[in-house]
Amino acid sequence: MSTSLSGKGLLLKADLIAASFRDEVEKSLAECSRSPKLVGILSTSSGPSRTYAEFTRKQCESLGFEFVLKETGAALMNGGLGEGEGVEEAIMEANEDDSVDGVMVYFPIFGPQQDHYLQQLVSPYKDVEGLHVKFHYNLYHNIRFISPSSLSAPTSSAAGLTGDEAENDIPPPGMVKSILPCTPLAIVKCLEYAGVYNKILPYGDRAYGKTVVVVNRSEVVGRPLAALLSNDGARVFSVDIDSIQEYTKRPSDLDSSRKYHPRHIVRPPPEAYNTLQACLAVADVVVAAVPNATYKIPTAWLKDGCVCVNVAAEKNFEKDVREKASLYIPAVGKVTILMLLRNLYV
Amino acid sequence: MSTSLSGKGLLLKADLIAASFRDEVEKSLAECSRSPKLVGILSTSSGPSRTYAEFTRKQCESLGFEFVLKETGAALMNGGLGEGEGVEEAIMEANEDDSVDGVMVYFPIFGPQQDHYLQQLVSPYKDVEGLHVKFHYNLYHNIRFISPSSLSAPTSSAAGLTGDEAENDIPPPGMVKSILPCTPLAIVKCLEYAGVYNKILPYGDRAYGKTVVVVNRSEVVGRPLAALLSNDGARVFSVDIDSIQEYTKRPSDLDSSRKYHPRHIVRPPPEAYNTLQACLAVADVVVAAVPNATYKIPTAWLKDGCVCVNVAAEKNFEKDVREKASLYIPAVGKVTILMLLRNLYV
Repeated sequence: MSTSLSGKGLLLKADLIAASFRDEVEKSLAECSRSPKLVGILSTSSGPSRTYAEFTRKQCESLGFEFVLKETGAALMNGGLGEGEGVEEAIMEANEDDSVDGVMVYFPIFGPQQDHYLQQLVSPYKDVEGLHVKFHYNLYHNIRFISPSSLSAPTSSAAGLTGDEAENDIPPPGMVKSILPCTPLAIVKCLEYAGVYNKILPYGDRAYGKTVVVVNRSEVVGRPLAALLSNDGARVFSVDIDSIQEYTKRPSDLDSSRKYHPRHIVRPPPEAYNTLQACLAVADVVVAAVPNATYKIPTAWLKDGCVCVNVAAEKNFEKDVREKASLYIPAVGKVTILMLLRNLYV
Repeated sequence: MSTSLSGKGLLLKADLIAASFRDEVEKSLAECSRSPKLVGILSTSSGPSRTYAEFTRKQCESLGFEFVLKETGAALMNGGLGEGEGVEEAIMEANEDDSVDGVMVYFPIFGPQQDHYLQQLVSPYKDVEGLHVKFHYNLYHNIRFISPSSLSAPTSSAAGLTGDEAENDIPPPGMVKSILPCTPLAIVKCLEYAGVYNKILPYGDRAYGKTVVVVNRSEVVGRPLAALLSNDGARVFSVDIDSIQEYTKRPSDLDSSRKYHPRHIVRPPPEAYNTLQACLAVADVVVAAVPNATYKIPTAWLKDGCVCVNVAAEKNFEKDVREKASLYIPAVGKVTILMLLRNLYV
C-alpha cells in the first residue's frame, strides 16, 4: 500500500486534455463561412442545468460559435409555467429553423423515460450530443461512417461502413462520421490521453489487455461507454445497482448473420467477479458516473496504480483516491463540450 | 354507502368487449389475399411473457393470422444464453424479412431505458404495438392520419392531419391512420363500451365532463392514455409514485405556433387535488396500471358509482371494489391483442 505523500497519484484536469481539441475546433471554425449556431433549451429550475447552460455559452463565445439560450417552463422567472413545460415545442421549432445548426436540451427534465422520448424528437441532423437511437445503434454495431440520408430512414442493418470494413479514420466520399454520444466519447478521449489506449496496437484494438470497471449502465453514459471500450478490445465490467455484466469484443467471424450482431457481447460475469469489490481488485481503469452525492467507491478496493475517472457532478471517489490511483481525472465536462461543438460544423 | 349485495356493481369482462372487434378483424382478414404474418420475439425466462406469447399464438391461429415465435436468449432451454441475449439481432432480422408483416417483442427485458432503445429499433412499418416514438408524437399532437412515407423521416411538426382538421374517421386518399399504442387504445375502447364516452357529444369531445384518474405514468401506458383521454375532453389526474399532474385539452386557438403544441396541457393539480385520495373522491373513472402485486387502491376512497379498470397483471383494486364501482373491468388484454392484430393488415 502506498500511503506516503510521495506515493500520491497524479491529478489530471480536463483542461489539459481539452486543449488539443480546442486547437482543432478553432482551426476548423476558421474555415467555416459563417458561425455555426447552437440552440440550448433550458426548461427547468435546476441550478446545475443553468450552470451548464452558462458554461456552454462561455465556451461557444470564446471559440466563435453563436449560442442562443431558449428558456421555457420553470426556467422562466415568473412565467407561471411548470417544470419542462414548452420543451417539446422548443425542440420542434429549433428542428425546423434552417438557421439553427445544432440543438442541445438540458436534462434531466421529466425522468429517464419521458426524457428519452424528447431525445428522439431532436432531429438527428441537429443532434450534436449523439443521443438519437440511430447513433446509439451505430455505436453498438461499430458503424463508423454513414451516408447522411440514412438518418432519414428506419434503423437498418446496412446503415453504413463498420470500423472493421473501414481502412482508416477518414470517411469515404459521400459519407460522414456517425456521431458518437458525447460523454462516452469524451471519457474515451481522456483515457487515450491518460495512456490507457496503447498506440502500438492496431487501430480498433488499442484497449486490448485492459480491464475496465464502469459504474453506471444508463443509456446515455454507462452502456455506450462499455460498448465503446469493449469494441476497442477492453474487458469491461458494467456495474449497476442490480447487476454486473461483462462486455467483451465479439470475435470477428464470417457468419452470414454477422451484420445483425452488435460488435460486443454482454454476459453475466464469471462467478469470481460477481461483486464490485472483486471487479475493482483487477481493474486497470475505473469510471464512475453515479448521480448520487453519497455514493463513493472505497479507495481500499482499488487496484494499486489504476486510472480513475469521475463523471458524476458530485465525486464518486473518496478524497484519498490518489493514495491508490496512479492517475485521477476528477471531471470530464470540459472535454465533453468540445466533442459536442465538433459536431456543429460537420 | 352501498354495501348490500343488491348494490354490487357490474363485472365487465374483456371478452364481451373484444367480441365486436373480433368480428371486424375476421371480416377484414377475409378480404386479404394471404394471411398476414406476425413474428413474436421472446428472449427472457419470464413466465408471464411466455404465457402472453402463447396467448398471442392462440389468438392469431383462431383468427387466421400466421404467427411465428422466435425464441432467443434465456427463452431457449439449455441454450447457454443470458436474459435478452440476441433480441436485437432478432428484431433486425424480422425488420428486413419481407415476408414479415408485424413484429412484437415481449417486454420487459432489460429495464425501461434499454427496452425503450429496442422499441425504437422495430421498423415503424412493422410496429403493430405502436411503441415507436413517431406514433407517440402523433398521439400527443392529435395527428390521426399520416402519409406512410412520413415514417421514413425525422419527426416533423407537419407530419399529417390532426383530428381537428380531419372531417371524419376515414383517412383521405394517400394517407393511413397513425397507429395508436395498443394498450392505451384498448383502454379507451373499454371506456367507450362502458358508456364513459358520450356519443351524443361531437367526435373528439366525447369524454367532456368526465374526471379520470390514471395511476401510472409510464411512456407505454399511463402518459399516452392521459393524453388520449384529455384530447377527447376529459379532465385527467395522472398519478405516479412521485407526483400528480393534471391533463386537460388545450383550448383550440389560431396561434401560429399551434402546430408545435401537444394537443393537451399538463399542469400541477390545484392544491385541493394534490393527494390520490382527493382525486379519487371526484373521479368518474379510475384506471390502474401499477406493476406491483401489493399495490391496491382502497375501495373506501372511490366515488360511489365510478367505473374502474384494472390494467396490471396483478389486480390493483381490492376484492370488494364493486361495493363502490358501478362497473369493474378486471383486465384489458383480450381487447389489446385485437387492437394489435388490426395493425397487421393496414
